[in-house]
Amino acid sequence: MTKVDLRKKILDENDRLALENREVFAAAGVLVLNLISSPGSGKTTLLESTLERLPGGTRTLVIEGDVSTDRDIERVRARGADGIQINTGGGCHLSAKMVAGAVGKLDIGSADLVFIENVGNLICPSTYDLGEDAKVVLLATTEGDDKPMKYPAIFHEATLAVINKTDLLPHLTYDVGKVEKEIAVLNPGCEILKLSALEGEGMDRWLDWIASRLEAKRAR
Amino acid sequence: MTKVDLRKKILDENDRLALENREVFAAAGVLVLNLISSPGSGKTTLLESTLERLPGGTRTLVIEGDVSTDRDIERVRARGADGIQINTGGGCHLSAKMVAGAVGKLDIGSADLVFIENVGNLICPSTYDLGEDAKVVLLATTEGDDKPMKYPAIFHEATLAVINKTDLLPHLTYDVGKVEKEIAVLNPGCEILKLSALEGEGMDRWLDWIASRLEAKRAR
Repeated sequence: MTKVDLRKKILDENDRLALENREVFAAAGVLVLNLISSPGSGKTTLLESTLERLPGGTRTLVIEGDVSTDRDIERVRARGADGIQINTGGGCHLSAKMVAGAVGKLDIGSADLVFIENVGNLICPSTYDLGEDAKVVLLATTEGDDKPMKYPAIFHEATLAVINKTDLLPHLTYDVGKVEKEIAVLNPGCEILKLSALEGEGMDRWLDWIASRLEAKRAR
Repeated sequence: MTKVDLRKKILDENDRLALENREVFAAAGVLVLNLISSPGSGKTTLLESTLERLPGGTRTLVIEGDVSTDRDIERVRARGADGIQINTGGGCHLSAKMVAGAVGKLDIGSADLVFIENVGNLICPSTYDLGEDAKVVLLATTEGDDKPMKYPAIFHEATLAVINKTDLLPHLTYDVGKVEKEIAVLNPGCEILKLSALEGEGMDRWLDWIASRLEAKRAR
């Protein structure tokens, strides 16, 4: 079997398992968001800030993906969310199989909302469907304003792009308009939000976005 | 062939080609540094700042790796370096084969120093030997101080860790000592430099490090 054949086989198998996950999530009536970014763009800080601000009664679970350590699940548990940490060993992305394994250990039927925080990597996770409702890509202003065109695949796949760390803009040379334009070229349907997960600026629009997605899910 | 077998075969083949690259580099008497980090940690800015400051007469080539675009090679060419851009398509790391292809198009015998800027990814490039003399891992202060233990493989492999963007420390909560301690646990032999490629602070120590490596290479 060639490398290309094996890659296709792995992706086909992943797609099959992602479809199963999607059916489990649909049966549970739960909204599932797959957060993808480079290491250090602020995925976990966004989760912490979101958990603090979600309306009371929003039952939320978190599936954390990392090469190593339990640091992220400890952070979200400290904000009151239940969830599970997946360590991939050397693996550079979560797979549908890993997520299925985690879902089996969680009371998914009791939840309204599941966040999957993928392994910190702007490339590999874009190819692996996990059964989520939407992929959310995060960029940090501190990473420079040239990233969308350099890492196009995730922007093709994402429903929403979050430009995080807007609180640091006064100290940076960063052209937000350039980034928005590049994302629009790659994926005209991709929504864009600017926020500071740490300082709270723009978090209301992110919470509105989640609320409208939850409502659409419940109306189905 | 299983996934594990194929992965081993790919890595064995990569190691064989890396050895060939290493022989080509040794014959040319050139020092080769493989820069690895997340997207946006400042690899290209470090190269720009280095090219501006290297002693006159240091003949430098740059091999740029990116999923897409020629942006990085254009930036280093604007600082007077010759080099070549490798676009991996969707590929998440450079391989020894890609580097061999690039080296074949460059006048490697005329150079003293070759920088290889790997694809922005803190995970996958750590496994692929390119024939370099040393792997240099970059971290940015803006990425948070919890990264070494979460991405251990590259710290096991790196000869030097550069903590970049020290100019932004006054605006961040970032414990440099914690990061240094984690790197020391993962790899006691890994040297650590703190600098701001953008503002210049600490660049002298990075240039000294390169100079001592160049000298050691020439003495062989």
